[in-house]
Amino acid sequence: MGNIKVGLLGFGTVGSGVYEIIENYQERLESLLGKKVDLAGILVNDITKERGIAPEILVTTDFDEILAIPDLDVVIEAIVGIEPGYTYLSKAIDKGCHIITANKELFAHKGRELKQQAQAKNVEISYEASVAGGVPVIGTLHQLLQVNSVVKIEAILNGTSNYILSEIRNERTAFLDALQSAQTKGYAEADPSNDVDGYDAFYKIVILTELLFGQRPEWKWIERKGIRDISLNHIQLAESFGFRLKHVASLVYKDGALKIDVEPKVVSEDHPLYSVEGVDNAVVITGDLVGQLKLQGPGAGKLPTASAIIEDLVNVFNSVHHSPVVKEVKLLHDVDEQEQTWFVIGNSTDQFEGITLFEESIMDHHDRVTGRLIQATGREIKKLKAKDNDLTVYPFSGTPAQPVKKAFATA
Amino acid sequence: MGNIKVGLLGFGTVGSGVYEIIENYQERLESLLGKKVDLAGILVNDITKERGIAPEILVTTDFDEILAIPDLDVVIEAIVGIEPGYTYLSKAIDKGCHIITANKELFAHKGRELKQQAQAKNVEISYEASVAGGVPVIGTLHQLLQVNSVVKIEAILNGTSNYILSEIRNERTAFLDALQSAQTKGYAEADPSNDVDGYDAFYKIVILTELLFGQRPEWKWIERKGIRDISLNHIQLAESFGFRLKHVASLVYKDGALKIDVEPKVVSEDHPLYSVEGVDNAVVITGDLVGQLKLQGPGAGKLPTASAIIEDLVNVFNSVHHSPVVKEVKLLHDVDEQEQTWFVIGNSTDQFEGITLFEESIMDHHDRVTGRLIQATGREIKKLKAKDNDLTVYPFSGTPAQPVKKAFATA
Repeated sequence: MGNIKVGLLGFGTVGSGVYEIIENYQERLESLLGKKVDLAGILVNDITKERGIAPEILVTTDFDEILAIPDLDVVIEAIVGIEPGYTYLSKAIDKGCHIITANKELFAHKGRELKQQAQAKNVEISYEASVAGGVPVIGTLHQLLQVNSVVKIEAILNGTSNYILSEIRNERTAFLDALQSAQTKGYAEADPSNDVDGYDAFYKIVILTELLFGQRPEWKWIERKGIRDISLNHIQLAESFGFRLKHVASLVYKDGALKIDVEPKVVSEDHPLYSVEGVDNAVVITGDLVGQLKLQGPGAGKLPTASAIIEDLVNVFNSVHHSPVVKEVKLLHDVDEQEQTWFVIGNSTDQFEGITLFEESIMDHHDRVTGRLIQATGREIKKLKAKDNDLTVYPFSGTPAQPVKKAFATA
Repeated sequence: MGNIKVGLLGFGTVGSGVYEIIENYQERLESLLGKKVDLAGILVNDITKERGIAPEILVTTDFDEILAIPDLDVVIEAIVGIEPGYTYLSKAIDKGCHIITANKELFAHKGRELKQQAQAKNVEISYEASVAGGVPVIGTLHQLLQVNSVVKIEAILNGTSNYILSEIRNERTAFLDALQSAQTKGYAEADPSNDVDGYDAFYKIVILTELLFGQRPEWKWIERKGIRDISLNHIQLAESFGFRLKHVASLVYKDGALKIDVEPKVVSEDHPLYSVEGVDNAVVITGDLVGQLKLQGPGAGKLPTASAIIEDLVNVFNSVHHSPVVKEVKLLHDVDEQEQTWFVIGNSTDQFEGITLFEESIMDHHDRVTGRLIQATGREIKKLKAKDNDLTVYPFSGTPAQPVKKAFATA
C-alpha cells in the first residue's frame, strides 16, 4: 500500500509547525500508521518567499494544483477566514479527501455544512486544533459524550484576552497598556478586535455547541461581550472581594434548553477558572455522571496547535470515528426570569437605592467606586441599568463568602 | 448480531455504579454500539445480601459461573487487591474476553502480564478508571503520545491525601484530626495506610509509567513517602513563603533515563498543582510539542469512576485501539548529583550553618520553626540530614520569588 498523501493549505505559524512535525517525526508516524506520511503539496500566497521547504514538495499558490495531486488522501487547512478556506475544503471533500482544519472562524460558520458533506462522501473531518489549540478538548468531549450528557461548559478560550486581564491586575495598568504589552509579546495582532471583542472565543463556543448538540446555535442566542470596557478599578474592586474578572465563554444546557454567553465574569477563588492566568486556555466541563472536569493548557502557539493537527491525522487513519450527536435544543426563553448572582459596580452608594445591600459590599477609597453582589433576574438587572446607565453589571460565578440577598426584595 | 454480553466482577461502590449506568443508559449505549449491552452476570462475595439487582441477571459468588456464560464478550473488574482479580482476568482473557479494570493495585503489579496475554489472545484491555477515576488521563496520554514524547508528569493522584492536606491548612488542625474528618466524610478508610502512606498514588504512577514507556519500572527506582509526618507547622511555614505542601507523584524522563517519586512537595503559587484542593485529582503532563497540559477532576466516586469504565466499554467495541509503546529506559543513576531546589525546615537557625541563606527565609515566631529554600544536589542533602536528623527536607517545585542561592557554595 502507498504512502498517506497530505496537502497542506497555508504556511503561517500553524502550517509551518505541521510541516516541521511531519518532516521530523516520519519514523514515529510510520510506526503509528503503518505507512509513510508524504507531505505532497503546500498552498502558499506568495511563491517568491524563501521558506526552506524541501525541494521535492510542490509549493504553489494555485489550490487546483494541490487538488490535482494523484491519490491525495487528506487536506490540512491552516489559513484564516471563511473564504477561500470553505471553497477549498468543500472541493477537497468532493474529491474524497479527509479534512483536518484549525480554522475556527471557518468551522464556526460552515462546520455544519462541511460535516454533512463529509458524511455524504464518507470521509473524516477533524478539528481538534480549532478550539483551545493544544488542549485536547474535542477528543475529551467525544470521549465523555459516550456516556455523559454535558450540562455545562465554562471556558477561557482566548489566551490574548486572558493575558491582558492578568496583566492589568498584576501591573496595575490600563487596558490599552496591557494590550500593547500583549502586542509587543506577539500575543495580540495589530488589529486585536478578533481577540478582545470576543469573536475568537465566540467562534470556539459555537464549535463546541455544535459538537455537543449536533446543530449550530442561532447566533442571536449568544450574548457576546469583549474586555475593552474593563477598567483597573473594576478589577481592583473585584479583587477586594477576593474575586477575579475573567473573560468566560459559557454554555448551560437545562431542560432541553440552551444558554450561551461570551462575556467578562466575576469569579470567586474557588472557581476553577480563577487560577487560569496568562495566555493559557482552560475548559471546565460538567457531565451528568463524571461531574466537573478541567482541562488547561496552551490555547495557541506553533507546535501545540500543530501537535493537535497531527493527532487528528493519526486518528483519521487509525479510524477513530465518532458518531455525530443530534439533540433537540431551544433557546432558554425565560432567561430574563432566571435568578442569578451579579456583581454590580457603581460610583456612589445612592445608585444602589432599592437594592438590598450585600454585607460584603465595600467602598474603594481611591475613587469612590463601590460594588455589590446581588441576587436578581436578568429582567431586574435590565430595569436597573435603564434607570442608571453608569452602573456596570457582571455575572458572578463561584461561591460568595456568605449567602447573597435577593435584590429589590421589598422595593 | 447478538448483544454485547458483559460480566461484572464486584458490586461495591464502583461495581454498583457500572450496573446503574448500564441499566439506565441502554438506549444511548445501543445507539453508540449498534448492539444492546447485556449485563449477564455479577460476581459478589455475599449472595444473601439484598442489592436490588434485576432478577434476570445471574448473581453468583462463583467466578466459573460468570466465565461459563455463553458468548461472554467482556469482563469488567471492580474488586480490590491483586488476587483473586488477577486469576479471574487471566482466565477471562484465555477464554477470549475483553478486559476492563478499575483495580490500580492489580494493574500496577500485573498490568504488563495482562497486556501481553491480551495481545497474544487478540483481545482489548482497558484501564482508564484505574488512574484518577473520572479524569480521562489514560485516553489523553494515548492521544498525545501519537506525536508527543511525554517528558514530565506531576500529579495529585490520591484525593484522600489531598483532602487531608487542605484540611490541615484550612482548619489549622493536626494530621490525625484531618484524617478523622476524612474518615467521617467517607473519603478515607478505617485503615488509611493505602492513601496516606502513598501506596495508592504509587500504583497509579507505576501504571502511567508503563503506559508511557512500555515497561514496568523497577520499584526500587521509586521513592515513596506519605503524608503522616507533615505537621501544621510545616504547612504554615510553607504558607508564610506563599507556598503549599502537596502530595505529588512525579515522573521525569531525560536523556533516556527515568526518575519517579511519590512524596510531599512544596509548590509555589504559580505551580499548576497549587490550586488543586480537596478530594480532586490533577495530572500535569508536559509533552515535547504540546507543552504543559493540566487535567483536573474527581479522582474517585461511584459515577465518575463507572463513567470511565463505560467509556472504555464503548471504545473497546468501537475498536479504538492504541499501539503499545516500548522505549528503552534506565534509572537516573546520577540522581544524587542532580542539582535542584529544596525547602529545608529546622528548629533553629544554627542548624543551617554552612548553608547559604536564602533571603526569603523566615522565622515562625510561634515555635521557632524556620525554613530555607536552597539549591543543592541530592547527595548534599543526604550529608546535611546525616549531620542533623532534625532537619526536614522537601523537594520544591515552581518559581521562588527570587533566585535560590547554591547551598554549601564555599562551605
